[in-house]
Amino acid sequence: MPESRTELQALGEFKLIDGLTKKFSLRHSSSIQGIGDDAAVIDVGGQYMLVGTDMLLEGIHFDLTYCPLKHLGYKAVAVNVSDIAAMNGRAEQITVSMAVSNRFSVEALQELYEGIYLACEHYQIDLVGGDTSSSAAGLVISITAMGRVNKDEVCLRKGARPYDLICVTGDLGAAYIGLQVLNREKQVFQADPAMQPVLEPYKYMVERQLKPEARTDIVQAMGKLQLVPTAMIDISDGLASELFHISKAAGVGMTIYEDRLPIDKRTYDTAVAFNLDPIMCAVNGGEDYELLFTIKQQDLKKVEGHPDIALIGHVTELSQGSHLVTKSGSVVPLRAQGWEHYKHASQNNK
Amino acid sequence: MPESRTELQALGEFKLIDGLTKKFSLRHSSSIQGIGDDAAVIDVGGQYMLVGTDMLLEGIHFDLTYCPLKHLGYKAVAVNVSDIAAMNGRAEQITVSMAVSNRFSVEALQELYEGIYLACEHYQIDLVGGDTSSSAAGLVISITAMGRVNKDEVCLRKGARPYDLICVTGDLGAAYIGLQVLNREKQVFQADPAMQPVLEPYKYMVERQLKPEARTDIVQAMGKLQLVPTAMIDISDGLASELFHISKAAGVGMTIYEDRLPIDKRTYDTAVAFNLDPIMCAVNGGEDYELLFTIKQQDLKKVEGHPDIALIGHVTELSQGSHLVTKSGSVVPLRAQGWEHYKHASQNNK
Repeated sequence: MPESRTELQALGEFKLIDGLTKKFSLRHSSSIQGIGDDAAVIDVGGQYMLVGTDMLLEGIHFDLTYCPLKHLGYKAVAVNVSDIAAMNGRAEQITVSMAVSNRFSVEALQELYEGIYLACEHYQIDLVGGDTSSSAAGLVISITAMGRVNKDEVCLRKGARPYDLICVTGDLGAAYIGLQVLNREKQVFQADPAMQPVLEPYKYMVERQLKPEARTDIVQAMGKLQLVPTAMIDISDGLASELFHISKAAGVGMTIYEDRLPIDKRTYDTAVAFNLDPIMCAVNGGEDYELLFTIKQQDLKKVEGHPDIALIGHVTELSQGSHLVTKSGSVVPLRAQGWEHYKHASQNNK
Repeated sequence: MPESRTELQALGEFKLIDGLTKKFSLRHSSSIQGIGDDAAVIDVGGQYMLVGTDMLLEGIHFDLTYCPLKHLGYKAVAVNVSDIAAMNGRAEQITVSMAVSNRFSVEALQELYEGIYLACEHYQIDLVGGDTSSSAAGLVISITAMGRVNKDEVCLRKGARPYDLICVTGDLGAAYIGLQVLNREKQVFQADPAMQPVLEPYKYMVERQLKPEARTDIVQAMGKLQLVPTAMIDISDGLASELFHISKAAGVGMTIYEDRLPIDKRTYDTAVAFNLDPIMCAVNGGEDYELLFTIKQQDLKKVEGHPDIALIGHVTELSQGSHLVTKSGSVVPLRAQGWEHYKHASQNNK
């Protein structure tokens, strides 16, 4: 055992990863992008291959009290497909590694694999391998997704430039509110198991939490529009955290506008009913798996009027920092906090 | 929860995997080989890309009481490189996903990554990504390795044909004996912490267990010899289990000869001292990570005289089954049991 002891919390998630991996360098000419993006980029000749990986642990990333195994299987695939989409690529293959304790029956695992199967059908993915073993406690799923992208269409985080425009797909904060709803109903149920959970009014948010979709439709639409973002990332940890990643990788600042943030009315109303600030939910709530991307100003006309893409701000010089402009016109520093501190610190699967 | 409940043990590891994945089919022309080999094979144009993945869990695959974190990091990379070698390919990239509990310090993870770093240096691998999160208990490491192979040189399990010769590299059973030594010393230590472990006489076997090497040297040597095996697999679960995998994939039988099995004298002597049958250790002991492969008869001259390749038998028709011919000439059915029942059932990382 080493003599000194530094707690993981003392360092924080990103410094930990930076510290552990700083010695590593890329030696193969085929290694185009290593740690520090949604997926690794490998030159395989005519195209780039993209490889992203995500590990989900019971008790950390999911709670089987309210997350059905079929949904979990679907979500585990979707979040990996989302990583490939965030590179502007199309996922084609996955491997699924799984560790399970004896608590799980064959039928339970069949439910899990039914969800994986449905996601593979929906996203047109081939399951090509994996690894199955037992675990001392709980369920662990580790998925690796492989995809492809044309070399001149790959979107790295580092590509954002000052004066680019910042766009986001869909709406934000719903998955986070969905989690609050599920947690509340769990507590109600634990207090009185005779109580039936009241989920119907919150269906939209709960579905966004339990069954997120990767925005492969947006990647396809951008292909048709001949739009190549200058940078792209998927929103797993929260908008602010993802803006920070682009900011850090590209060496730029970010300004976003509160009144531009796309928030569904149901999310907004439920946040208020739960005494939560809807803007904070949209800025720091995670797991929406929407795409955040930056485009050149001349590409504005390609996204204007798209019903599912919102223009939320613009890229600035690094020296200007990252800010949120409120509805009242105040400029507040954007704080890049993931919504789960050191619960899920990805190296290339943010 | 499903109504009926079938225990995982009732089905057995391979039937479980077969059952869970039977619905899945390959839809992309780029998916050349899916579940059922050491690594997936993806057509990327000029060459094949190989993708193998392995997940290691504390308490299941390793015991930190006697496995130093640096060795664990090295081994986690080596076993994945071995999967790529078993396809006759060369690994170039890995992703490393890790989940850790608060029990681990930053310094402990630095030790782990030092081992990963050493393995990356030794095998000339680029670390290109991963995923880091917390775990409720213990350490989980999931590594995915990517490699390449020329299309006419890839070795699938299904390529073995009757009358091919069966070869194995290095020697067998040492890693299993090493594990017995470590377990014994752990018990001695637990009974009396003042006792110092006696490992020196068992150094070879203990090293084989704690720091196995992928036989990338053999893959290189075969390239120089212009030898392409008809089938190949790495020995992670034990010789008998791996022979069974080739047998099942290729639809052939196997005959191996006891007096041909390569067993190091130190392994043999320690097995006897531990009241274990050295032959059983060589046949069913796992984790040697040697290569088991089949070659056409006309290629015999290419391996004859190679100091690190032993000819141990030949492939037969499926109807003849799989057998071990003992020194006394008895023919006994080969039992395909992994040495850890339902501890490590790989789909493509055997």
